[in-house]
Amino acid sequence: MDFEFSDKVERLRAQLSDFMRFHVEPANHDWHREIAAGRYPLPLLERLKSRAFSEDLWNLFLPGLGHDQPGQRLSNLEYAPLAEIMGRSHWAPEVFNCSAPDTGNIELLQQFGTPEQRAQWLDPLLLGEIRSCFAMSEPDTASSDARNIQTTIRRDGDAYVINGRKWFITGALHPNCKVAIVMGVTGEQLEANSTERHSMLLVPMDTPGLEIVRNIPIMHYHSPEGHCELLFRDVRVPLSNLLGAEGKGFRLAQDRLGPGRVHHCMRTIGQCELALELMCERALERKAFGKHLSEFGNLQDWIAESRLEIDQARLLVLQAAHRMDRAGNAAARIDVSAIKVVAARLQTRVVDRAMQVFGAMGLTPDTPLSYLWTWGRAMRFLDGPDEVHLRVVSRAELAKARLALGNNAWYFVPPPGLAAPR
Amino acid sequence: MDFEFSDKVERLRAQLSDFMRFHVEPANHDWHREIAAGRYPLPLLERLKSRAFSEDLWNLFLPGLGHDQPGQRLSNLEYAPLAEIMGRSHWAPEVFNCSAPDTGNIELLQQFGTPEQRAQWLDPLLLGEIRSCFAMSEPDTASSDARNIQTTIRRDGDAYVINGRKWFITGALHPNCKVAIVMGVTGEQLEANSTERHSMLLVPMDTPGLEIVRNIPIMHYHSPEGHCELLFRDVRVPLSNLLGAEGKGFRLAQDRLGPGRVHHCMRTIGQCELALELMCERALERKAFGKHLSEFGNLQDWIAESRLEIDQARLLVLQAAHRMDRAGNAAARIDVSAIKVVAARLQTRVVDRAMQVFGAMGLTPDTPLSYLWTWGRAMRFLDGPDEVHLRVVSRAELAKARLALGNNAWYFVPPPGLAAPR
Amino acid sequence: MDFEFSDKVERLRAQLSDFMRFHVEPANHDWHREIAAGRYPLPLLERLKSRAFSEDLWNLFLPGLGHDQPGQRLSNLEYAPLAEIMGRSHWAPEVFNCSAPDTGNIELLQQFGTPEQRAQWLDPLLLGEIRSCFAMSEPDTASSDARNIQTTIRRDGDAYVINGRKWFITGALHPNCKVAIVMGVTGEQLEANSTERHSMLLVPMDTPGLEIVRNIPIMHYHSPEGHCELLFRDVRVPLSNLLGAEGKGFRLAQDRLGPGRVHHCMRTIGQCELALELMCERALERKAFGKHLSEFGNLQDWIAESRLEIDQARLLVLQAAHRMDRAGNAAARIDVSAIKVVAARLQTRVVDRAMQVFGAMGLTPDTPLSYLWTWGRAMRFLDGPDEVHLRVVSRAELAKARLALGNNAWYFVPPPGLAAPR
Amino acid sequence: MDFEFSDKVERLRAQLSDFMRFHVEPANHDWHREIAAGRYPLPLLERLKSRAFSEDLWNLFLPGLGHDQPGQRLSNLEYAPLAEIMGRSHWAPEVFNCSAPDTGNIELLQQFGTPEQRAQWLDPLLLGEIRSCFAMSEPDTASSDARNIQTTIRRDGDAYVINGRKWFITGALHPNCKVAIVMGVTGEQLEANSTERHSMLLVPMDTPGLEIVRNIPIMHYHSPEGHCELLFRDVRVPLSNLLGAEGKGFRLAQDRLGPGRVHHCMRTIGQCELALELMCERALERKAFGKHLSEFGNLQDWIAESRLEIDQARLLVLQAAHRMDRAGNAAARIDVSAIKVVAARLQTRVVDRAMQVFGAMGLTPDTPLSYLWTWGRAMRFLDGPDEVHLRVVSRAELAKARLALGNNAWYFVPPPGLAAPR
Repeated sequence: MDFEFSDKVERLRAQLSDFMRFHVEPANHDWHREIAAGRYPLPLLERLKSRAFSEDLWNLFLPGLGHDQPGQRLSNLEYAPLAEIMGRSHWAPEVFNCSAPDTGNIELLQQFGTPEQRAQWLDPLLLGEIRSCFAMSEPDTASSDARNIQTTIRRDGDAYVINGRKWFITGALHPNCKVAIVMGVTGEQLEANSTERHSMLLVPMDTPGLEIVRNIPIMHYHSPEGHCELLFRDVRVPLSNLLGAEGKGFRLAQDRLGPGRVHHCMRTIGQCELALELMCERALERKAFGKHLSEFGNLQDWIAESRLEIDQARLLVLQAAHRMDRAGNAAARIDVSAIKVVAARLQTRVVDRAMQVFGAMGLTPDTPLSYLWTWGRAMRFLDGPDEVHLRVVSRAELAKARLALGNNAWYFVPPPGLAAPR
Repeated sequence: MDFEFSDKVERLRAQLSDFMRFHVEPANHDWHREIAAGRYPLPLLERLKSRAFSEDLWNLFLPGLGHDQPGQRLSNLEYAPLAEIMGRSHWAPEVFNCSAPDTGNIELLQQFGTPEQRAQWLDPLLLGEIRSCFAMSEPDTASSDARNIQTTIRRDGDAYVINGRKWFITGALHPNCKVAIVMGVTGEQLEANSTERHSMLLVPMDTPGLEIVRNIPIMHYHSPEGHCELLFRDVRVPLSNLLGAEGKGFRLAQDRLGPGRVHHCMRTIGQCELALELMCERALERKAFGKHLSEFGNLQDWIAESRLEIDQARLLVLQAAHRMDRAGNAAARIDVSAIKVVAARLQTRVVDRAMQVFGAMGLTPDTPLSYLWTWGRAMRFLDGPDEVHLRVVSRAELAKARLALGNNAWYFVPPPGLAAPR
Repeated sequence: MDFEFSDKVERLRAQLSDFMRFHVEPANHDWHREIAAGRYPLPLLERLKSRAFSEDLWNLFLPGLGHDQPGQRLSNLEYAPLAEIMGRSHWAPEVFNCSAPDTGNIELLQQFGTPEQRAQWLDPLLLGEIRSCFAMSEPDTASSDARNIQTTIRRDGDAYVINGRKWFITGALHPNCKVAIVMGVTGEQLEANSTERHSMLLVPMDTPGLEIVRNIPIMHYHSPEGHCELLFRDVRVPLSNLLGAEGKGFRLAQDRLGPGRVHHCMRTIGQCELALELMCERALERKAFGKHLSEFGNLQDWIAESRLEIDQARLLVLQAAHRMDRAGNAAARIDVSAIKVVAARLQTRVVDRAMQVFGAMGLTPDTPLSYLWTWGRAMRFLDGPDEVHLRVVSRAELAKARLALGNNAWYFVPPPGLAAPR
Repeated sequence: MDFEFSDKVERLRAQLSDFMRFHVEPANHDWHREIAAGRYPLPLLERLKSRAFSEDLWNLFLPGLGHDQPGQRLSNLEYAPLAEIMGRSHWAPEVFNCSAPDTGNIELLQQFGTPEQRAQWLDPLLLGEIRSCFAMSEPDTASSDARNIQTTIRRDGDAYVINGRKWFITGALHPNCKVAIVMGVTGEQLEANSTERHSMLLVPMDTPGLEIVRNIPIMHYHSPEGHCELLFRDVRVPLSNLLGAEGKGFRLAQDRLGPGRVHHCMRTIGQCELALELMCERALERKAFGKHLSEFGNLQDWIAESRLEIDQARLLVLQAAHRMDRAGNAAARIDVSAIKVVAARLQTRVVDRAMQVFGAMGLTPDTPLSYLWTWGRAMRFLDGPDEVHLRVVSRAELAKARLALGNNAWYFVPPPGLAAPR
């Protein structure tokens, strides 16, 4: 057991922090100005991406070791502290080609893509030439169980035909988004609970019949990349656009979600660290009733509680990453559920305190806090609501207990009256 | 002690509920469509206002008994359950001429307005012909203590000249908003802690130099009426626009805020009831893992906890209203601080649970929950952050304890070893 | 709606407070010394009881208005503030003949006792000559549902024969405890869920076969009156000892528990007030890091939070008492469940804070806090665990919601894309 | 970074678990029977100690590597998982000579004892022939700051003379307790805040003038070893009984407390695991309303929350142990404060849930829960109250923030109106 990062990771952390400071930070106001003007700031991003690529701060998370692809080939555990740094700014991951949902889609294509699919989609994704989205969630479907998905994929001659509605499809409005991985039900309707009914298709965004209905605001926030509602009306793609095998979509999705969730969690940790730093700064600078806020015992408690909570959550996230590296995504399923719950709650709690220290300014878009807070709240649903993940954890615990029933009987001390017959 | 409302209040509750159901509800989608199209839906509102006026559901809260004005002349306690009903829809209070900040401004004008001021501003406000705003909060000033306000009001011949910046000025963008009550520092700068340095002016919204800089989004939400940032650059108004006496602005503000806070709290109760109802409905209709959500013990707990919390909060709010009616706004200051804290927290807590039951849909603007949640969060700052109000409560408690020091000494039981010399 | 107590109640409060101050307080150390020496301090109590009786501070809660019995005949709502005062000292209620479980047993005897039963048990109970206990809870039975009770009552000639085990029987060790009301299953075993299978018997404590097995410590605390485990082995009582009718025991128990719970809750409020007062006193007197504890913002918050919570809980308790008086015990069932949960949790929360302010001294028996804290924890089970009462509340809420399904549909704003076919 | 224990530690864990199962468990009821009869079960313990010694499960934590002493010489990090196992039974650590406060006293003697002191006290302590206690806390002194200690140590010829009162002295009633390490003020009274005023003395328990006044119940629980109040009246010991140098007592105490706290925390983790296991077992076995408790969503949540909290806390404790091993006790001071707060709160929270699942039985001494719960509460004071440790954490955080002021300014997005002059 060792709690220190390797030298390699420490070196990358330092390099990435410097990059953030010397290149991302100076571009931040321009980024926001462009977005406010309704333009996605591609030129600014391309400049930064070139630089990150040339410094080899690129595709920091990239499994599929056998391939001749750019990237650092880090494990989940090694990637975690870097995701934490990038996650502090919500637009920074794109600079390093580490954006969700691209990392997950890259993973799928690396593992299951045909050579043609890889040439067409994976290579430009790895080079940051295009972006992608992942279309799974649906309105009117309990998203907590992917088996419920209803979008249909029907075979019609040499094409698949897709019909259905998807929502919260992140990144669909990015100007570089060229392809969606779409999950739907193929073949006949077998039994409803089956995990062998779904398939994934690669669907170019400009395919006729694919309509972006709206960019759904999340707690009133319109993401510039979009969390979109998509309508598929008789959308046709060639059979060769099938990703993996028919009926294997559910398994592919399960595998894909693990690392994505861990990375989300690690970015959350970075965002909570940022909120804590802002809270401390504000407390040191602002006065009320003749004292600095930092001198008030209740604010001090908020700071300390936040530190305790962040440090604990980070360790749990790192342990989950470690287990995923060691035992595989499936074996770490319960660990991932655990950190999913911990991280999402952490964010609303820590940011809530920070906002309170900022007073009314904390409500405005002038600080990053209102975004971090509402996004934290959204994280309690996205990738499955807290309750579903708590259920996974409790069922695992109860299963262990069932095997050990009676082992702890010796701790019970018989009361004096026990001898008497009942 | 009696926990039943009077017959008069029960009658008004029934009448108001019917009005909501038969007139406000059918207009709701039109209201939102107009707002979405960037138009404030005045024709729709005027139609509803006329009807409310003719049914005497008008100016439900209106002190100043001696005047010959339309309205029900209800006490705070009588008004509370009606504010609860109106508060369920955030645009409904305007229908009954019960909007903040007008009710507070009406109170100020009734008590301190000159006959000319009353003719010019109070009468049209009472008739719902115009709206108004109240410009007190400032950026860069700890809003928790009104003495810190920095906007200057300088006398220059027969005019006052205002310079400064205000923010979170609710209602300034309403098309009918014709006048602002502005608080600033008059005369020479006396000692900083003085409560005799501030004055209030009536400032027509079209006065040269008064600029609406922006409509500040609150947690990304742009209110159609505006929570605005206002800039005053050499804004001149005649001396006759002084409200009350010079140097009395702080006192006026203190008096004004009490009822306003109570009404906010009561609307909050109504909003929490709505959230609880929505949560129950969703739980009854939605299924997961083969059961209705309403059958899950954790969801049941959320429902019960919400009921316990709402009922307790409502009683505390009513008791504060009762004390305000009985002993005056100043005497009920601690009660008002108490409910201010209780109500704002209640809203985020209850709505948070309701959102979680709605899943991803709870993030969208399709339900009222995302608005209610972010607004609830804002309420933890507006009219003073929680911590300032908790401080008021704890200081009162400690003051009581100081007077009673030693009274409880008899509860301590001397340990056996006490006889031994220490 | 009115939040003031009547003059009569205010007069009784003042009289009772004076009695506590001038008579109970001076006897407190003697009471504890006697208990520590293993003696129940009957002489001291008899002296105080005589005085209370002569001042008419006696049987403050006593329904059954038609009877010619000593007492004030107060309603639940009138009794509540007096129970709050008496509850501050855990031995004070006995002085005023207001102890649990006697008040509940008196109620049962008044309503259902035969003239002979009343002469034998009720009259001496009303005069404070004897005490009683109520034997319902059983080990190995989910106490949350009285239908599960397993003690058998078999008819054998002119006697009932009782066999079974009871626990947490409060008061069974009091030297004056002369009778137990025992609940068990009579007749044949009808269907398990029936509420018509149980009966209540009056059982003299000296009946052969009734054994007090042990005084169960509650969180290590041995109550001097006892929370006892009782063993019934072929305990025979005459048929005339049946209370009410055979098969009606469950109903009797349900009716009995309502007022008992409300009184418990009100005493809890008094105990929380005491804890808050002690916390304030200690904070004013104790220093750390060069400041009085009362100057630390976190301690101030604890004080304010406690005040907010106590005031809300008290109002909810009073409202429940009011509804019980107005609509009857059965109609107020949900209100009673609600306050049961609120009060028990309140006690651990408020006392926990007070203990923390006292530091290590808070662990010792030298202050009343350790007793109040552990007792508060016990209250979360006694008379039914929190979860059972929350379940009652949520089921009532869901039942309301089921009737109103769809009423709130108008609050949902259709998203722009709604027109598109799904 | 690696989250696996070494093979050596895993081997010891297995060996220790087996020992618990095959030797401690069968003796548990005898241990309790002896204690209930008022006898400290020394014969039973000696038998188990011999066996543990012969299996080399002895002095598992033992620094001071240069010495020829029995023991495993484990680091704090290696010791932690073993303390977790031993901590599950509160009497088990004595079997392995790993009891507090002996481990801390051994550390002090190893580092600062003279050869004579070591021969007299250290050697028998290492062999488990005697026990010891540590007398620092005082009534009427804010225990959170050891500088406040008031017991005086006066030099008188060839002796030190001690006068004062100590309390919560753990282990003083153990029949084998032969020596106390006593902290007091030596020499003249220098400035009050000095950390150079205190000294430590070795005081045989049978020294005249040393009186055990009482065994203080902690939440009504009388520990068989005692948490005692000690009175020192002109207690004389030879000058050679000074431990370390005069005036260095404060520093010695600071150093001593770190590992002791970490070990406490790790035992707490073990106790929380036990409580969680008991909670799961009970939930699997008990039924209510026709379902097993394990099927209720709220209980499932409690189980999952407990798992999340325990796992996070364990990692934080292990990290603190790692830092202590790596950088020394002083450098890990903030880490120790952090886990101190986390662990104590964890215990009350997890055990509280477990008790609730057990219903009324959770109140009794028949399960270990009531002890674990009240002990957990005590841990929130012992070794310093939560608030003092939170203060340490927040001050460290604010100090970091002070150095970095302004670093995060770039995250703030200037509002549109910024250009306008303020």
